[in-house]
Amino acid sequence: MSNSTGLIATYQLTLSTEKATDANLQKLAEQIAVGQTIGTANAGEMEALQPYLAEVVSVTSHSNPLIKIGFPAETVKSDLGTLLAVVFGKISMGGQIRLVDLEIGPQLAERYAGPRFGMTGVRELTGAAEGPLLMSIFKPCLGVSAETLGEMFYTQALGGVNLVKDDEVLSDPDFESARYRLECCLQAADMATQETGQKTLYAINLTGPAEQLLHRARTLVQDGATAILFNYLCYGLPMLNALRQDPDITVPLVAHPALAGAFYGSPFHGVSPQVLFGTLPRLAGADLVLFPSPYGSVSLPMADAQAVSVALTHAGAGLKPAFPVPSAGIQAEMIPKILADFGSDVVINAGTGIYDHPIGAYNGVQAFVRTLSDSTAALTM
Amino acid sequence: MSNSTGLIATYQLTLSTEKATDANLQKLAEQIAVGQTIGTANAGEMEALQPYLAEVVSVTSHSNPLIKIGFPAETVKSDLGTLLAVVFGKISMGGQIRLVDLEIGPQLAERYAGPRFGMTGVRELTGAAEGPLLMSIFKPCLGVSAETLGEMFYTQALGGVNLVKDDEVLSDPDFESARYRLECCLQAADMATQETGQKTLYAINLTGPAEQLLHRARTLVQDGATAILFNYLCYGLPMLNALRQDPDITVPLVAHPALAGAFYGSPFHGVSPQVLFGTLPRLAGADLVLFPSPYGSVSLPMADAQAVSVALTHAGAGLKPAFPVPSAGIQAEMIPKILADFGSDVVINAGTGIYDHPIGAYNGVQAFVRTLSDSTAALTM
Repeated sequence: MSNSTGLIATYQLTLSTEKATDANLQKLAEQIAVGQTIGTANAGEMEALQPYLAEVVSVTSHSNPLIKIGFPAETVKSDLGTLLAVVFGKISMGGQIRLVDLEIGPQLAERYAGPRFGMTGVRELTGAAEGPLLMSIFKPCLGVSAETLGEMFYTQALGGVNLVKDDEVLSDPDFESARYRLECCLQAADMATQETGQKTLYAINLTGPAEQLLHRARTLVQDGATAILFNYLCYGLPMLNALRQDPDITVPLVAHPALAGAFYGSPFHGVSPQVLFGTLPRLAGADLVLFPSPYGSVSLPMADAQAVSVALTHAGAGLKPAFPVPSAGIQAEMIPKILADFGSDVVINAGTGIYDHPIGAYNGVQAFVRTLSDSTAALTM
Repeated sequence: MSNSTGLIATYQLTLSTEKATDANLQKLAEQIAVGQTIGTANAGEMEALQPYLAEVVSVTSHSNPLIKIGFPAETVKSDLGTLLAVVFGKISMGGQIRLVDLEIGPQLAERYAGPRFGMTGVRELTGAAEGPLLMSIFKPCLGVSAETLGEMFYTQALGGVNLVKDDEVLSDPDFESARYRLECCLQAADMATQETGQKTLYAINLTGPAEQLLHRARTLVQDGATAILFNYLCYGLPMLNALRQDPDITVPLVAHPALAGAFYGSPFHGVSPQVLFGTLPRLAGADLVLFPSPYGSVSLPMADAQAVSVALTHAGAGLKPAFPVPSAGIQAEMIPKILADFGSDVVINAGTGIYDHPIGAYNGVQAFVRTLSDSTAALTM
């Protein structure tokens, strides 16, 4: 990738055999490169437009042809909304076409900054220097008082989780409810820390009208928030980056995948899991990213889930690695398999797996903690 | 729909015959109603959680079963990000499931407000009291000077278009470039008005980091902007509503469909065109919505395109109607068909159809204006 290249996008096409000729694919690739940047132009104008024009990097013809297009940094570094419009705006509507990979160049890594904390920073904040982290969820969520959520938080923190997160549908029509919930959960966290010596972060769900999100996030951080949960696909990737770039929002950002199935569900359209849960939220600044695990009823194929994990953590991106959080349907007995599939730089995230424990959530957490401890010991023997 | 119901969502499932039994569908419907709102709960807690719980409205079993769920206003009126997370958050990842319809209740219509101008307001601003409006696009776009765009604007305005829009990939890393482009195009609009007596709105593309969008939009309006173009799916539906709700952003909002194919491309996943281009942007406040026409190479099936048009304009939604703008591949000779398919409350939007005219863009516009005039005369005979 040259210095002036902002990113290289890979598109997978699904074409009939007679359309998938080398000549036709090359023509399609050139149409994408022109159509997604300068639009149309006649020969006389091409010289002036050259710096803005994308270029065809490669065309691989087989049953699912792959086209790689390099976009100049100039056309994709303004902001992430523009990046999405350039890379997969009009062309997303061009039939059976899927954005399967994005390779980010150094100019974009610098521009969008990526995780503020990354895996190492989150480990420092939790005091968990090595091994997987454990995260739990409030269930039920809507209609439960802040005091009750605080009690649930205390039980889970005492049990030994490193992070507790809100449910993603928990909203705050009146922002004061978020501030009070935060207060109750921070008190619970402190009480548990006094007993266990361990820290438990609270990823409070940031919701509200778009024009209030940054103010709300800054206020929560001033109030002592230790992490923020954010439905980045519902509010838009650019807003995730706005949270990341704000100098006063100095807590880890936990990206939640709500709405993601609309993007990755079809194998012939949309955006691949590795781009949707990996490259894009890492670029925009998520420190942890939840995505469907390969184990539960809401699940990704194993290869996709592992590709997400690689996209979140690989070196050479010019960005700190973010924590993969394979989620949904996680039970304590799966931990050895999770570690085998994803390594130990991973967050074990359990909701019903904890709450449905026959003798309560505390014992639910403890079952996870014991299995984690055993599994990690087994790994290091 | 009861007063406390916020909206009714219709999901289309694609299931194997043995799974599509009435009993199984009813169970799935109840899982959606519980899972997307209160999460999980035991019987003892259900009374307190009742106001937040969605309810199964109907289950229609056939080859593509439809499930209708009513969500309490309480759970979806906080903000549009929360609405998306509740209605199609986790459940979007639950296999072959598509959000095909949304019926909006009066509480939500009031909360999110819908179009500020609507069709009638846009007609007043353009002075076009009846018949279709004509919109044109800058081609090429990237790398063209503001002065040249101003000249292109003048030619098109003189030709008789009611609106000129930026290309959706035209961004402004430095906001001053947008202000200068606006100045050049407003001058061109004024010059043309002096000659023709007609007004031409300029839908300038609003781009930038999320935290700057509202400030940029307010500044453009102060500078005299007459309309704003916005990639609402790239920046997020909540940001479109933030533009709508801002008291100082007093110009029509033109919603651009960039990225939309990722949502509607597969017939088994994602979001239907009528929800994606109709119900949602109308609710969030778009005055005009572009979507793929049924005519070009980037196209929707006719039934989908017409369903979008109905969702944008139907009475009874408690919202002003928004202008449908079927786009892509529009040529002058198609106008009679467009009017037959969409009626005369429509915007004819042409890019290459104007620029590729053998003797220049002015004559390209004139060809559209003449055909429009003839077609409208034919309709009123």
